Formats: sequence, structure tokens, C-alpha cells
Amino acid sequence: MNQKYPSVLLENAVNEFARLPGIGRKTALRLILHLLRQDDAMVDGFAQSLVALKHEVKYCKVCHNISDAEVCPICQDKSRDAATICVVENIKEVMAIENTMQFRGQYHVLGGIISPIDGIGPADLEIESLVKRVSQGNINEIILALSTTMEGDTTNFYIYKKLAPYNIKVSMIARGISIGDEIEYADEVTLGRSILNRTLFNESYRM
Amino acid sequence: MNQKYPSVLLENAVNEFARLPGIGRKTALRLILHLLRQDDAMVDGFAQSLVALKHEVKYCKVCHNISDAEVCPICQDKSRDAATICVVENIKEVMAIENTMQFRGQYHVLGGIISPIDGIGPADLEIESLVKRVSQGNINEIILALSTTMEGDTTNFYIYKKLAPYNIKVSMIARGISIGDEIEYADEVTLGRSILNRTLFNESYRM
Repeated sequence: MNQKYPSVLLENAVNEFARLPGIGRKTALRLILHLLRQDDAMVDGFAQSLVALKHEVKYCKVCHNISDAEVCPICQDKSRDAATICVVENIKEVMAIENTMQFRGQYHVLGGIISPIDGIGPADLEIESLVKRVSQGNINEIILALSTTMEGDTTNFYIYKKLAPYNIKVSMIARGISIGDEIEYADEVTLGRSILNRTLFNESYRM
Repeated sequence: MNQKYPSVLLENAVNEFARLPGIGRKTALRLILHLLRQDDAMVDGFAQSLVALKHEVKYCKVCHNISDAEVCPICQDKSRDAATICVVENIKEVMAIENTMQFRGQYHVLGGIISPIDGIGPADLEIESLVKRVSQGNINEIILALSTTMEGDTTNFYIYKKLAPYNIKVSMIARGISIGDEIEYADEVTLGRSILNRTLFNESYRM
């Protein structure tokens, strides 16, 4: 339904908000009416934080993660293992893996995955820079931590082929039954994989 | 879980976005990463539209709806019936009622409803200005179109009492079974009301 807004300013703001993914025009209007009830400083701060982020944010020149400095805190951290690199799609996965506190290596953020349907090819991603990092030596292992989707598998395979000339280990995060899941309800592909890729009992509990 | 963001700029933007109602930190991050992928002009336009709205928006001095001018297009429209005023909570209800195309009168936007739990009393709403509009004469009917909640009923009753000294009709939008609903599943209060407030069959179909 084509809504009539009583104000052009309001309509513009709704249009802008509704361009965000998952935000429809009704939600946009609700969020904007909320902002209208706040004081000027809050709305200005909101807008300013977005403009500042967009104009001033940097990408780490080593791992391509979002960063305030030329090199991000993780890549600067001397206590981390620079010989193990975990390849992820985006900053969200870096944050998720950091939260597990199970990984003490460094990252490489691709900035997406190969997805022909969205027009994203290898050249749009930070794959060349990963190969370059590996070619400079001192890397023992690349851990591929991409989504378990067709696009993720394609990207995994592409990177695996690109890294083949170098004498390094390329691994992939385990795919199997989620902790807490009942086997009865697991899908067949996952369950099948979890049997093929079974781990030795005493090794499963090493931390 | 306390997430660690790799950038202060990013964290600030997430914090600002997550202050919006219904937007959590995960959604905020997703929206911001989307904005980061857009070009500068789009993000600037987004931020600018909010700042412009907040600083430049006016409220119609007659009905208190959001407006670009001193008097909103609805109040300016000479073809509308200025003697019938529909009282609503907010601009969203004005838009919803306008979409029905069943109302050709004018509006009065209260800017909220009486809600002691949220600290909103009659003085915080545009009730005095409604009484003033009525006291100036030329009004035949006030239609109360507030939510069918306890707060809505309280506000209805308060306004009804305030308008009692004036010789005008005060009506309330019909409450009953929604069009398309099955009676079997209607709640008892609604069903009871719909029997008490039944309408003559031939009158139900007047348009």
C-alpha cells in the first residue's frame, strides 16, 4: 500500500531507513518516531557515529579486518601465533571465534564469499592478499572457517587450490552435530559427515 | 556476552543503533556492516535525512500532526469536514485511517496516551488543545480512535469527561470481531461487546 506521509522530511527519513536489510517501511516509521521523541543531541550523535564510521574506519593492512589503526589489535598482539591463520568471511565471524577463546592465531578476513548469483567472484575478495601472506613464508597452517553452504564450500575449494603450491597445512573447521543437539533430529548430511569425520574419544576432550 | 569490537568507531555506531527499540546488538552490527558496504553518499544521505527531520520538522498548530508547514495538508484541505475531529494517539494512526479512505474529517493527534506506568499524564498530551479547539465552536462530533487497551480506555474516558460541558457528540470507533475472523476463536470480551453493540443489518452495509 502506498502510504501518504504528512511530511516530506519524514518520508525521506523513512525511505532511507527502509533501504536497510530487514527493515520495512512500518519498522522504519516506528524507529524514526522513536528518534523524534529523543533529544537533538541523541539524534545528532546517532547520525554522527555513522558518518564517522563510514569516513574514518580503516581496514587492517594485514588481515583486512575493520580497525581504527593501520594494523588491527589482533595482528599487533605479539602473544598470538602468527603462523596459524584462520580465514573468515567477515568481521562478525572474527568476533564469534574470538568469543570462544579457543583460537590464539591470527585472522584473514575475505570480505565475503564467492557467490556467482550475487556477482561476487574471487577477485572481489581478499584471496590474493592471503596467497601473498602465505608466499612470504612463516605460515604453518591455514584454517578455513567459512559457512557450510555451497558458496562457502566453493570458496574453501578455490582457496585450497590457490594454496596448493605452498607447503602448508590447510584445515577446515569441524562440521558435525552441534553441542546440545539430539542425534535423532540431526539432518542426514551432517550426521553422515559426523560419522566419517569421527574423532578419537580421548582426543575430543583435549583443550 | 560482552563482545569485543575491533574498532571504537564501529563500537560507537553499534551502541547508537542498539538504542533503537527492537534493535539488538547483533542486528545493529548487521545493519552497520551493510551501511559500510554502501558508498559514502548513501551513508551521508541516511545520516543527513535523520538530522534534517529532527531539526526541521514541525507540528501542525491545529492538529499537532507531523508537518512540513505550520498547518498540515489535512487541516488545510477545504474539502474536508472541519466539524468532525478524529482523536488519535499518533501519526501512525492518522496514516492508517487515511489509508481506509473512510474518513473525510480532520484529526487531533494527542502524541501518546495516558499511561501512569510510563509517567505519561494528561498534561503531557495535546488534550488541552483539543478542549480549546472544541470550545471555539463549529465542532459537531469528536470520534475517539485510541487503542482498545486499558490506557486507551482511560484516555477515552478522560477526554469524554473534559468534553462533557460542551454540547457535542462524542463517539468511539466500533469494537467487535475483525473482518475475516472466525467467531469461534474470538476472545470473550470482544465477542460480548460485539453482541451488546450490534448494528442493524441494513445499517452495517451503508458506506
